[in-house]
Amino acid sequence: MGALTIIPISGIPEVRPGDSLGELIATAAAAQDTPLADRDCIVVTQKVVSKVEDRLVALDHENLDARRELVERESVRILRRRGDLIISETEHGFVCANAGIDLSNVEDGFAALLPVDSDRSAHRIRNTIRVEAGADVAVVISDTFGRAWRHGLADVAIGVSGLAAVVDLRGQADARGRELHVTEVALADEVASAAELVMGKAAAIPAAIVRGLEPEWFRDGSVRELIRSPQDDLFR
Amino acid sequence: MGALTIIPISGIPEVRPGDSLGELIATAAAAQDTPLADRDCIVVTQKVVSKVEDRLVALDHENLDARRELVERESVRILRRRGDLIISETEHGFVCANAGIDLSNVEDGFAALLPVDSDRSAHRIRNTIRVEAGADVAVVISDTFGRAWRHGLADVAIGVSGLAAVVDLRGQADARGRELHVTEVALADEVASAAELVMGKAAAIPAAIVRGLEPEWFRDGSVRELIRSPQDDLFR
Repeated sequence: MGALTIIPISGIPEVRPGDSLGELIATAAAAQDTPLADRDCIVVTQKVVSKVEDRLVALDHENLDARRELVERESVRILRRRGDLIISETEHGFVCANAGIDLSNVEDGFAALLPVDSDRSAHRIRNTIRVEAGADVAVVISDTFGRAWRHGLADVAIGVSGLAAVVDLRGQADARGRELHVTEVALADEVASAAELVMGKAAAIPAAIVRGLEPEWFRDGSVRELIRSPQDDLFR
Repeated sequence: MGALTIIPISGIPEVRPGDSLGELIATAAAAQDTPLADRDCIVVTQKVVSKVEDRLVALDHENLDARRELVERESVRILRRRGDLIISETEHGFVCANAGIDLSNVEDGFAALLPVDSDRSAHRIRNTIRVEAGADVAVVISDTFGRAWRHGLADVAIGVSGLAAVVDLRGQADARGRELHVTEVALADEVASAAELVMGKAAAIPAAIVRGLEPEWFRDGSVRELIRSPQDDLFR
């Protein structure tokens, strides 16, 4: 197994609704002399995906009632409330703070909702890159979620195209020849976390190349693999 | 912000109690022509740390009562039970399955407990590498945990030395000049997840180099930064 390289893609301009992220990413990568290649995995942050898909809604950030109503509208189930914080499940099946609604890095007076279908957003970017750059890449859409029990936020996948979201190593023998019991690795989440290390919250780098992932991990994938079913979930 | 490189360290032999992991890692890295350098972050899996620290205990894996008793003994609080699975809090403050006790990749008839103090384990490896390789590195001890709500396992940090476990970006302006509300990034967890991508569960690679992290992230750190306090935790 070889080394992995994670390359931030800088030089992507502030995006607007209708922009083609695939084009912007392919162009910026070529301009910084790291043109996209087959089996690169491109990680793109939710912020820019929501912007090009025009998922911005008007919101007076100081109006806590309006904010709460928006979060409730984007939720299918409320898990916990504390003060202004709501932990809820979105219609995608994600459990996160404030239904994943983004208040930072958005125009004043607006909030950014999650993409309607981030797998489809990832497909679209991937197809554009295939045409624009001639490269067969995978795409992961990432977002920044809090976790139960652990302090600090980590990036996870909210959309996937061309990559296994979960790699199932159940039944493969471990180094001592015994069956591994349960080793389903949340690959797309780990890829999102890895990419976040070069993107930086304040640096406005909305995409990164993860280069060197195992060839067998590139297949049709969906973020639905990462959703724990409610009946399997001990904390919902 | 530059690129990040993640290099698996292969050629580390099967370890035994009392072995010096710092020596083994420095030697193996040099032997594969990727000698350790200042500001590398070395990620080391819990499995090998528990082995060199002789945290193996006898356990008949088929004896479910013995297994349950061991998990309960290593727990300070049980959060959930379902069948053989116990989600509990360890005395370190980690919430995970089966108190973090490792049944795979261990000699038959044994199980591996978590290190007593993984920050100290990380310090020890770091100090040895400073002496053996003349390199001032950071060290993260990683383990594979399940998550609430999301399917699949991801590697997280259970011990840290020389690196911020959480990077606090609160109050730094975002790209639009507005204050960021809460952006405390679980840096050491993201580093552990990134390293896992080159280690592979079945490949028996127990350590990796993460090269290219931001210089300001290298400081005294502790895994305690990553423990969400029970009063701040809505799911305990």
